[in-house]
Amino acid sequence: MQGFQENLLKVIEEKNLHEYLFLGNFGLEKENLRVDKKGRLALTAHPKAFGKKVENSYIKADFSESQVEVITPAFDSIDESYNFLENLQDIVSLNLEEEYLWPQSNPPYLPEAEEIIIAKMENRHEEEYREELSKKYGKKRQLISGIHYNFSFKDSFIEELYDSIGTGEGYKEFRNNFYLRITRNFLRYRWLIIYLTGASPIFHETYIEGFMRDAFKINNDSYSINNMVSLRNSIYGYKNKEDCYVSFNSVEKYVEDLKGLVNNGKLISHKEFYNPIRLKTSVTDDLLQQLLDGGINYLEVRILDLNPMYKNGVSKESLYFMHLFILLMLFIEDKPLTEEEQRIANTNHDLVAISGMADELFIFEDDGSKILLKDKALEILTRLEELASVLDFEDKYKNIIKSEKRKILNNIDTVSEEIVKSTKNSSFIEFHMNKAKQYLEESKKKEFNFIGFEDLELSTQILLKDAVTSGINIEVLDKSENFISLSKNGKKEYIKQATKTSKDSYSTVLIMENKLVTKKVLSDNNIRVPKGRDYDEVKSAVADFKYFKDKKIVIKPKSTNFGIGITIFKESFSKEDYEKALEMAFRHDNTVLIEEFFSGKEYRFLVIDNEVVGILHRVPANVIGDGIKNITELIEEKNLDPLRGHGYKTPLEKIKLGESEELFLKNQGKSSTYIPKKDERVFLRENSNISTGGDSIDFTDDIHGSYKEIAIKSASAVNARICGVDMMIDNISEIADNVNYGIIELNFNPAIHIHCYPYKGKNRKAGQAILKLLF
Amino acid sequence: MQGFQENLLKVIEEKNLHEYLFLGNFGLEKENLRVDKKGRLALTAHPKAFGKKVENSYIKADFSESQVEVITPAFDSIDESYNFLENLQDIVSLNLEEEYLWPQSNPPYLPEAEEIIIAKMENRHEEEYREELSKKYGKKRQLISGIHYNFSFKDSFIEELYDSIGTGEGYKEFRNNFYLRITRNFLRYRWLIIYLTGASPIFHETYIEGFMRDAFKINNDSYSINNMVSLRNSIYGYKNKEDCYVSFNSVEKYVEDLKGLVNNGKLISHKEFYNPIRLKTSVTDDLLQQLLDGGINYLEVRILDLNPMYKNGVSKESLYFMHLFILLMLFIEDKPLTEEEQRIANTNHDLVAISGMADELFIFEDDGSKILLKDKALEILTRLEELASVLDFEDKYKNIIKSEKRKILNNIDTVSEEIVKSTKNSSFIEFHMNKAKQYLEESKKKEFNFIGFEDLELSTQILLKDAVTSGINIEVLDKSENFISLSKNGKKEYIKQATKTSKDSYSTVLIMENKLVTKKVLSDNNIRVPKGRDYDEVKSAVADFKYFKDKKIVIKPKSTNFGIGITIFKESFSKEDYEKALEMAFRHDNTVLIEEFFSGKEYRFLVIDNEVVGILHRVPANVIGDGIKNITELIEEKNLDPLRGHGYKTPLEKIKLGESEELFLKNQGKSSTYIPKKDERVFLRENSNISTGGDSIDFTDDIHGSYKEIAIKSASAVNARICGVDMMIDNISEIADNVNYGIIELNFNPAIHIHCYPYKGKNRKAGQAILKLLF
Repeated sequence: MQGFQENLLKVIEEKNLHEYLFLGNFGLEKENLRVDKKGRLALTAHPKAFGKKVENSYIKADFSESQVEVITPAFDSIDESYNFLENLQDIVSLNLEEEYLWPQSNPPYLPEAEEIIIAKMENRHEEEYREELSKKYGKKRQLISGIHYNFSFKDSFIEELYDSIGTGEGYKEFRNNFYLRITRNFLRYRWLIIYLTGASPIFHETYIEGFMRDAFKINNDSYSINNMVSLRNSIYGYKNKEDCYVSFNSVEKYVEDLKGLVNNGKLISHKEFYNPIRLKTSVTDDLLQQLLDGGINYLEVRILDLNPMYKNGVSKESLYFMHLFILLMLFIEDKPLTEEEQRIANTNHDLVAISGMADELFIFEDDGSKILLKDKALEILTRLEELASVLDFEDKYKNIIKSEKRKILNNIDTVSEEIVKSTKNSSFIEFHMNKAKQYLEESKKKEFNFIGFEDLELSTQILLKDAVTSGINIEVLDKSENFISLSKNGKKEYIKQATKTSKDSYSTVLIMENKLVTKKVLSDNNIRVPKGRDYDEVKSAVADFKYFKDKKIVIKPKSTNFGIGITIFKESFSKEDYEKALEMAFRHDNTVLIEEFFSGKEYRFLVIDNEVVGILHRVPANVIGDGIKNITELIEEKNLDPLRGHGYKTPLEKIKLGESEELFLKNQGKSSTYIPKKDERVFLRENSNISTGGDSIDFTDDIHGSYKEIAIKSASAVNARICGVDMMIDNISEIADNVNYGIIELNFNPAIHIHCYPYKGKNRKAGQAILKLLF
Repeated sequence: MQGFQENLLKVIEEKNLHEYLFLGNFGLEKENLRVDKKGRLALTAHPKAFGKKVENSYIKADFSESQVEVITPAFDSIDESYNFLENLQDIVSLNLEEEYLWPQSNPPYLPEAEEIIIAKMENRHEEEYREELSKKYGKKRQLISGIHYNFSFKDSFIEELYDSIGTGEGYKEFRNNFYLRITRNFLRYRWLIIYLTGASPIFHETYIEGFMRDAFKINNDSYSINNMVSLRNSIYGYKNKEDCYVSFNSVEKYVEDLKGLVNNGKLISHKEFYNPIRLKTSVTDDLLQQLLDGGINYLEVRILDLNPMYKNGVSKESLYFMHLFILLMLFIEDKPLTEEEQRIANTNHDLVAISGMADELFIFEDDGSKILLKDKALEILTRLEELASVLDFEDKYKNIIKSEKRKILNNIDTVSEEIVKSTKNSSFIEFHMNKAKQYLEESKKKEFNFIGFEDLELSTQILLKDAVTSGINIEVLDKSENFISLSKNGKKEYIKQATKTSKDSYSTVLIMENKLVTKKVLSDNNIRVPKGRDYDEVKSAVADFKYFKDKKIVIKPKSTNFGIGITIFKESFSKEDYEKALEMAFRHDNTVLIEEFFSGKEYRFLVIDNEVVGILHRVPANVIGDGIKNITELIEEKNLDPLRGHGYKTPLEKIKLGESEELFLKNQGKSSTYIPKKDERVFLRENSNISTGGDSIDFTDDIHGSYKEIAIKSASAVNARICGVDMMIDNISEIADNVNYGIIELNFNPAIHIHCYPYKGKNRKAGQAILKLLF
């Protein structure tokens, strides 16, 4: 393999493979303990919202019942994976009841060990395994949490390399050696990652066990040691009971050694091998055999502490740096790693974790010689800089290297140092609880968004978020069309725009799409719809005056918006007025409808699977006076509501004060400087659309049940499982009869977000109702 | 009721109700005997295509197994009802095997009576009733066929009249009296209808029974009497055994009298009351009780003979005249009809039927006085003319009255006279068989059309026709959208554009609509689709040269038509050519696709409910030379095919010789005056669309079964029950493997007419396959 790294560089240049260096499969796993508002370990059960632990592939419980583990799927980029991690962080946080996610690797305020609840698993084996661990390590130590970084290159990249620099070995062997090369170098230089990312320098007094009392000095409620970087990575942290030597020189040896450790009882299972980096396969059943059969599919890096300074427990820059570091591990010289060299690497790891002083700490080279941490770190970072330059990395990567180099040079600003500083004038619990509460507030602000997918319609974002919550696997098939698939237990559903599903037949949708046919079908089912006729010419419409003259009617162009060209006759009218109204309507369309006029207010019923999930009434954009502020100021105030935004990214739109609104005020003899009296409501528009700043008001619990029955019957009439029913109602407290209501329209693609986050009233769980229908 | 008709006129004027006079519910029933090509009564079974007699509401068997009865639904106008009758005529004719519909009321060449088969009914009672009739009247007499004309005014018209001229009676009574008034006058003056429409003046010798031999003189193979108008309406025709007097002065008396006739054994059932006009209800179970409970819903006029001069058995003008006559019956004076007056009316009926000489025959007035037929007829028609003038009827109606008046004045051109003339120099059988054969040819020419609905897409017309054939009730809900409903045995299906049904889920359709998602789903199911990528800018596409350079590829704008901007690389290509192709593609669209190129020819598989119903290959517009005609002439010749038409009203389009075609010829060094050699094929277009004159060629039986399996698997992958699968195939005789085919597209709205009527090859029953799926 002499010159492998030179060959590598050459092939990348020649074949123009640069893009593959930053393309890969990136996945993240993160554990957090649940705590109460005082920072005490929660002793409650894993939230029901997340369903069965064994079925939810995104949100599980780890060692303890109160240790939530979130897992992202593999994405092509760090950014996507990071966004998904944020979604999981938000979802878990928002589904806790008066609890918080503890943002620190080291445990919070702990009860006595016997009170800590081991996770209750659907599978008895998994519970037994946890019990054995608790006996071996003690429950408290198993509570230490962290982040796992899963990574592989695209196979097509390794294939291209194999085609050019393979030396007769099989492709599987080539790929194994490729990943083993990275792994060995990673093990050699991992102390640098610990130094730069270690974030567990202090811990709570309740974590302390006898043997540690003397080693650490107390500060307020917590313990630390000068220059400690990562308790978690230290010998006092999440480490195997005994050092376990496993070869990384071939997959076969790796498997053989691991099996040996299990057979001689040193490990309960290969899962207990708490190495900083592990070899993984995409099929997880029977991992060791899979490694032999299919080879290495990806690497699992287990070295990252939770960084409490970030909501996600890690900064995106740390992940970028991790990737750059892995790239470097591929491009520097490598040779088989002896047991002695592993021991030296482990020593460096332990030293840096417990006492990371760049200027003072000496670490060991492979040959056992000593070198100052700072010098070795700079050497490595300089080589990374060179690589970045040769391969022409983007500036954002070059800047990260520069920044990390600066930290080493100046011996300041490491993550651990920052945390120690921050807790100096506060308690360990207080500092982290402040962070936990701050992150919950941040999650609340993005409650309706599915991060990284903000281009999707809000209804689709809500559905995705609800799916992830209950552990249904999601895939976005076509972003621009809001086309997704959801799958669970081998069943796959395709969904467009949240409410277009397999549960409605195509003809059902087509009936709803055609107003004429909808009316006919509803009317055949004895549901009240506006009777009416349509006309292609004024003459025949005029001839029908006799038919309409004693009725309340609406005259309107067939395809009209915002009331243009519409006349409503609520009382008896003359033939002249009738003709004028017709002429006006025909000015806007070639076809004009004359329909029975329904009095009352309009309500949107969301019917899902024969149940009314929500009822909404929309009110045109308006402000309510306080006797002090003028209209402009009242609008500004109302627009502060986080529910209001621009361009349909939030459940409501900000109220504008444009030409239409000014004109509308003028017609009322008012202007934007007018100061409404206390409780005076001033409307800014005629139309009640949410898109023009209207309010949505939940009425689900306020409307007489008889109207809900009519809404359900209407949906059933067209055989719809998901249906928005627009109903006019005279008096919502009165029982429905044959004249006091009317169906205006059925919608096959009703927005769900308006029910989930109304301006006033209770949030309705429309996303969950759809998931219940689908699965 | 003094002055009823004056009041009526006044209300119509005042309320402007003129349009209601020609708006109503019009339905037609028609019987025809099936005959073989020699005019002998068919002794075969009722065709299976029409399903169970009891379930098919359009096509039944009447008295005899070979007597087909067709029934139209009620329509608002005569025109619609007439069109539907034509559809039924076409459908029945086209579903007979080497048989014809006998176009004459009087029977064809009959076997001995015992050989005539009574209709085999699913209901034993119905068969017994027919057996009793055959004993009472003889089988031959029961074979006489005719047309029933069912009519009612719109209830809203009668309601308007009731509001204005009701005199305190209930609405039901008002409406009963309204229809009884018409009925009584109709009975009084019906002889005029017989005179003008009677069309059974001669009959075949095999019809003759002993008592008739002397009364009639023979002519060739048939019998007649001078000036006979209608054997069917005569005492030798389809009349009750004994005269049955039933009151028409009240519904109660009518019901009482009919019950009496049945009770004293004169009639087997009220159904046997062969009156020229009968009172009917819309609910048909227990008719007499219904008449008492709900009153008269419509009138059944039973007086029309089959007119062999028209394919439909009746001219539209005769139906218009029937309506005008009924209107007149409403507007002339009326009084209760005594038994004596009925007897006089019956005598006039019998006289005119057997010997209709306008100039010579005297008939009787109500009071028993005599009047020349001609004088009385002119009197009635003059009154009709006056009515038409007062109420300002359309000219087409006025012209019909004028024309009938002329026949009376000149004593010529009655239907019966025309028939007698026509058969003078030919035999009875020959004349009618020539007509029968001519009508079958006419039906064949409209084989793919559903008359009266030619604006609908051809696929929908075919489906409607197939539905009517098997007795599925049809309704056109929205013509402009090709939206129909079909119902049978209480089950209703909504269908748009023939293939958009309840059997496919909405998400299935959305998958097929989205090319990206379709490819993903198919590929997940191990079905070969063109691999590819899409690009928003030239740069990134150029960067992927390495990925494509050794493959056969197509570079194309995302939304392209007719090959514009497309480059195909079938062999290895240079980076320069690749870049040029990209630049060209980007000139036509902001998104460019690079896809794997599939060789082979394209075939459309129509998959319905997991079966391949048809496979079609399309060939661009072309002509094949004969060494004599030039291209223009060859096109003209090819366009004579009745399958070719304009504007998608036929299965194929006529080939045009426009700019595109001339240019295409020019590029081949040819022009429209070029004379192709014998068997030389000259193409006129690049694209194979049917819309630009392409040929459709059926390959259903020619393609290796393995491709059919792939087509079915493709439809299943997206869970489609109706699906058009476009497949590229290298060699249709070879078994499918992993590289010799590829799916280009799935279509959720595949045209069915191209499979039903291909240019070459077998017609496939796609409409029936859809009906089988739905019911």
